[in-house]
Amino acid sequence: MNPANFLPMLTRVLEEVNQISLPGPGFTRPSFSNEESRAHTCIAGICETLGLKIRRDPAGNLFARLPGRNRSLPAVHIGSHLDTVSQGGAFDGTAGVAAAVALAAWFAKKGQQPQADMIVTVIRAEESVWFPVSYAGSRMALGLLNPEELNAKRVDTGRTLAEHMRDQNFDPDAIWGLNPPRKACFIEVHIEQGPVLSIAGDPFALVTGIRGSLRYRTAQIHGTWAHSGAAPRNTRADSVFAFADLVKALDSDWSEALAHDEDLAVTFGIVNAASPIHAMAKVPGQLSFCLDLRSDEKDILERTNAKLAKRIAKIEAERPGIRFVLGPQSHSTPIQLSTTLLKGLRQAALDLNQRPPEMLSGGGHDAAAFAAAGWDASMLFVRNEHGSHNPNETMDLQDLAEAVAVLAHWLDHK
Amino acid sequence: MNPANFLPMLTRVLEEVNQISLPGPGFTRPSFSNEESRAHTCIAGICETLGLKIRRDPAGNLFARLPGRNRSLPAVHIGSHLDTVSQGGAFDGTAGVAAAVALAAWFAKKGQQPQADMIVTVIRAEESVWFPVSYAGSRMALGLLNPEELNAKRVDTGRTLAEHMRDQNFDPDAIWGLNPPRKACFIEVHIEQGPVLSIAGDPFALVTGIRGSLRYRTAQIHGTWAHSGAAPRNTRADSVFAFADLVKALDSDWSEALAHDEDLAVTFGIVNAASPIHAMAKVPGQLSFCLDLRSDEKDILERTNAKLAKRIAKIEAERPGIRFVLGPQSHSTPIQLSTTLLKGLRQAALDLNQRPPEMLSGGGHDAAAFAAAGWDASMLFVRNEHGSHNPNETMDLQDLAEAVAVLAHWLDHK
Repeated sequence: MNPANFLPMLTRVLEEVNQISLPGPGFTRPSFSNEESRAHTCIAGICETLGLKIRRDPAGNLFARLPGRNRSLPAVHIGSHLDTVSQGGAFDGTAGVAAAVALAAWFAKKGQQPQADMIVTVIRAEESVWFPVSYAGSRMALGLLNPEELNAKRVDTGRTLAEHMRDQNFDPDAIWGLNPPRKACFIEVHIEQGPVLSIAGDPFALVTGIRGSLRYRTAQIHGTWAHSGAAPRNTRADSVFAFADLVKALDSDWSEALAHDEDLAVTFGIVNAASPIHAMAKVPGQLSFCLDLRSDEKDILERTNAKLAKRIAKIEAERPGIRFVLGPQSHSTPIQLSTTLLKGLRQAALDLNQRPPEMLSGGGHDAAAFAAAGWDASMLFVRNEHGSHNPNETMDLQDLAEAVAVLAHWLDHK
Repeated sequence: MNPANFLPMLTRVLEEVNQISLPGPGFTRPSFSNEESRAHTCIAGICETLGLKIRRDPAGNLFARLPGRNRSLPAVHIGSHLDTVSQGGAFDGTAGVAAAVALAAWFAKKGQQPQADMIVTVIRAEESVWFPVSYAGSRMALGLLNPEELNAKRVDTGRTLAEHMRDQNFDPDAIWGLNPPRKACFIEVHIEQGPVLSIAGDPFALVTGIRGSLRYRTAQIHGTWAHSGAAPRNTRADSVFAFADLVKALDSDWSEALAHDEDLAVTFGIVNAASPIHAMAKVPGQLSFCLDLRSDEKDILERTNAKLAKRIAKIEAERPGIRFVLGPQSHSTPIQLSTTLLKGLRQAALDLNQRPPEMLSGGGHDAAAFAAAGWDASMLFVRNEHGSHNPNETMDLQDLAEAVAVLAHWLDHK
């Protein structure tokens, strides 16, 4: 099992798909855009040449089937997505599709069949920056989209998901009558979106679960506007000082959680005390912020949220005139990926003398939607520099090929 | 000395001037606008009727002289300004002009002269929100404007100070040849811009000095952008957490300074981690902020600035990847107002059975420009609710009349 066998097709898919992009730095293929559709057509063409049987569902998801030796086993869907964020990188999504096509090409070239049916699976509309809908493509494939989500508007065009689907000759009305694919397996290869593998020097990892989140997107702190030179300290209700209290308090809670081996991440991604009424010489009477809590356990998220409420009550008591309004909470449930698949992939890696680390995914992926629908889902992460969703994503094809080799061995022998 | 004597003219000036405003909430008379000029014309008209001798300098500052019994004493200029911020209040500036006119009217009605010449003084362009120039009007009156400051552009029109002066029939070229008024006295009555008098229940105060400032208008924190779910805590360089460290550190330095009876105020008036590249699910790699330090002592400002540098060095050491760039520093020197005038006004108040508190001014005022030029300058603050520079400024005319009564007694007997 020489990983180098996979390099030609990995290279070809990444090169051909990444020729398709809107202008600008990096790569831009919006969800349900002409660019995403052209990328799907590119993959369908390669798969047809390999002899795979192509199917598209009414949502435009692409399934290319390579029949297995034992047709009674559940099919193994392997794939990812081809849409990107605006000015994204070369690998987020596309690397996983390249992995699936390279696996199919390897079997086709050998003239062999995998144990079970293997289905190259290319999902639509994974990047929810375009439509504010989580996993639109995979949830349509699974028959799990809410009808009102078809009315979600694309941020750049203001037109709805249904309209953009029709533009690409798909049928939003048909997705309700859809027979979802039989519960089976879904395996996604994806670049790691953080620096963990790079720091540890590991080419790839097996993913055990996907962190959930608890979020406040429109939190506000209300205080009292005052003159920066004329308001004595004890008369102030300064929203920025109250915010700093909160950040330091959660920083301490976060540190404590990690000390107890609890998985937690705390991020204030947007902080705004810079409206037209803010000024250098005014005590800021208002501040808005986003808070994103992540963990692999719902309990930890809920306990952190309870601590947050206590922290806020304490700050409000210590700073008269300060009032927090957290606003609506949104959340996603932490997802446990399949332990059966994990065990199989761990053994396949061992067979190839690999001992990949096991880690959580911090970001959401289509695998989460399949797992939530009761499928056996799994993921492999490939080492990547500079994070994702930017033109500087940097993945070594050799690392990707090593992950693909493990999958090939597993598909061949499972 | 019945303060009620002053109420009719105080009421008249405030009503007539505040009929002149651009549309919108509150009152808007931009510096060197038609509205400011109409307000000056209104005051000149009233003063002429009272028999005062009107003079305008080439910068458009208005001087209306009531001759005193002893012409060899230095003249006492009493006044303030009539321009306002956009959507400002009824009293900032205008109350001080009303006070000066009411004093002149009181002497005129009695047919008496003050000890020294009293000059109702109406200064142009005090509100530096329009032109980014401190005390443009008073510094032109004093011959102290820098020539290049005439090229400063008004924020709403983009046209220069010189152009706007010519629009109002004044002569920017003549201000260099100007004989500045002989060093004399300048006394300004002004609403307090903070809540101190209101909280203490005092109608007015004597002002001992004007706080100076040390400011960073464009400070930045640079960190590392990362995925909010995927970047482990120990890999992060989060600009928001670094900012919270700084706020808490300066909060502690501030508290310590006050405990040592040092005058200090610390304000982060603008905080911005909300650019188009900030997002809820991104560790923020950048944050910008303003810092405004105020004190009555230059030494305290400089010591706080030195502590700031140490605090930043510590945060940078504790948070690898974080880098502060404070950018240009600007400052204004703390101003000590005249102790002679203060003593005289304190005695005048005592004569009227008043014991006004003595306090610092947090905001800058034209009195600072006169004091810096070597004049004997003083100020009286009048109790005011809701701060200044907004339509909700609330001053009781009775409080203003009590401050005017002290001035009248002082002018009569000094």
